[in-house]
Amino acid sequence: MKGYFISIEGSDGSGKSTQLEKMVAYLRERCPRVEVTREPGGTAVAEKIRELILDPENRAMTARAEMLLYAASRAQHVEEKILPLLEEGTVVVTDRFTDSSIAYQAYGRGLGDMVAEVNRIATGGLEPDLTIFLDLSPEAGIARKRREDRHELDRLELEALAFHEKVYKGYDVLCGENRERIVRIDADRPVEEVFSQIRQTLDGALREKYTRNDR
Amino acid sequence: MKGYFISIEGSDGSGKSTQLEKMVAYLRERCPRVEVTREPGGTAVAEKIRELILDPENRAMTARAEMLLYAASRAQHVEEKILPLLEEGTVVVTDRFTDSSIAYQAYGRGLGDMVAEVNRIATGGLEPDLTIFLDLSPEAGIARKRREDRHELDRLELEALAFHEKVYKGYDVLCGENRERIVRIDADRPVEEVFSQIRQTLDGALREKYTRNDR
Repeated sequence: MKGYFISIEGSDGSGKSTQLEKMVAYLRERCPRVEVTREPGGTAVAEKIRELILDPENRAMTARAEMLLYAASRAQHVEEKILPLLEEGTVVVTDRFTDSSIAYQAYGRGLGDMVAEVNRIATGGLEPDLTIFLDLSPEAGIARKRREDRHELDRLELEALAFHEKVYKGYDVLCGENRERIVRIDADRPVEEVFSQIRQTLDGALREKYTRNDR
Repeated sequence: MKGYFISIEGSDGSGKSTQLEKMVAYLRERCPRVEVTREPGGTAVAEKIRELILDPENRAMTARAEMLLYAASRAQHVEEKILPLLEEGTVVVTDRFTDSSIAYQAYGRGLGDMVAEVNRIATGGLEPDLTIFLDLSPEAGIARKRREDRHELDRLELEALAFHEKVYKGYDVLCGENRERIVRIDADRPVEEVFSQIRQTLDGALREKYTRNDR
């Protein structure tokens, strides 16, 4: 694969959107082709699945159905968008990927190993080359989000704090199991300090990737 | 499980809707509680997933995404509707179930074993007690459907005949592997003759189920 695949992960309120924007701007100054995308969504079909998942009207949605909808959206996203971009040498940055499903569905909803199994099928085994995990405790995250955004909470955000604590535990386990891929960054600091650490991580990753081309 | 779970399967144009209606009327005369449902769909959330799958606008949908959407719809259908009905002793008749996914996705789309794997997760292992398979060759089925219904063809029906032949092969394999559960009925005969054989099958199944209660 000629491109480079980066995901950004983090619980609600961890500053993910802000850091994603800064990351993409930074990468665009340094790499010929950069594309940013998001999950669930990223293509027309996947965005329709996203609407279905997040619509508060669908409260009756079971945990398994939700997990399979995320996987369907991801399968579409990978095959229609991410793989073709990587094949043409693009740096692809996605707002969330499989780690989110493991954290939210396997740990948060308690579905366990079936989530990884279904996602291996959905992605055909594709994993990010690098994952930035913005680490913020659930309590701090929810408080921060409400203060800053003042937006209407969506269906997932309405879930109780207990749920977010299980999600956080999931990310913690994933970080432990994927030390090579996931870089854990303390997000309970000023925006510029957090981004400074992300920038160092990106510099290292790009140096490794583009070393040959630069000479 | 106190209820009884029946699925009806068959390729397009096999007379499935007509036979399903007759089956349900017949069962309602004999069983205290009978419910009819359909796949994809059967609940509000699952019907929304159905709309997404069948919408001709979603031509870009990949085979994997489609398969995962069917599985999501089925997971919702099983957990929200079928299991609760079976638990209260209802005879549940569903228009299509997992066999359709095996035939259409594993064989028709060529996705293979991953379809059964995902569906075991979606259903939690639930299988029909009895499956009626209306056996009609793809050529005869498509010709019959166009003649009788004169309806707008939906996205799946627009697929080529070659696809329907692979689907038919899938049903053939399933029949061979599930001789206890699937009753194969020659559907290339007049409606009443086909139903007469279905009635005999239902009588046998109900006799077995209600023997104790009748005495």
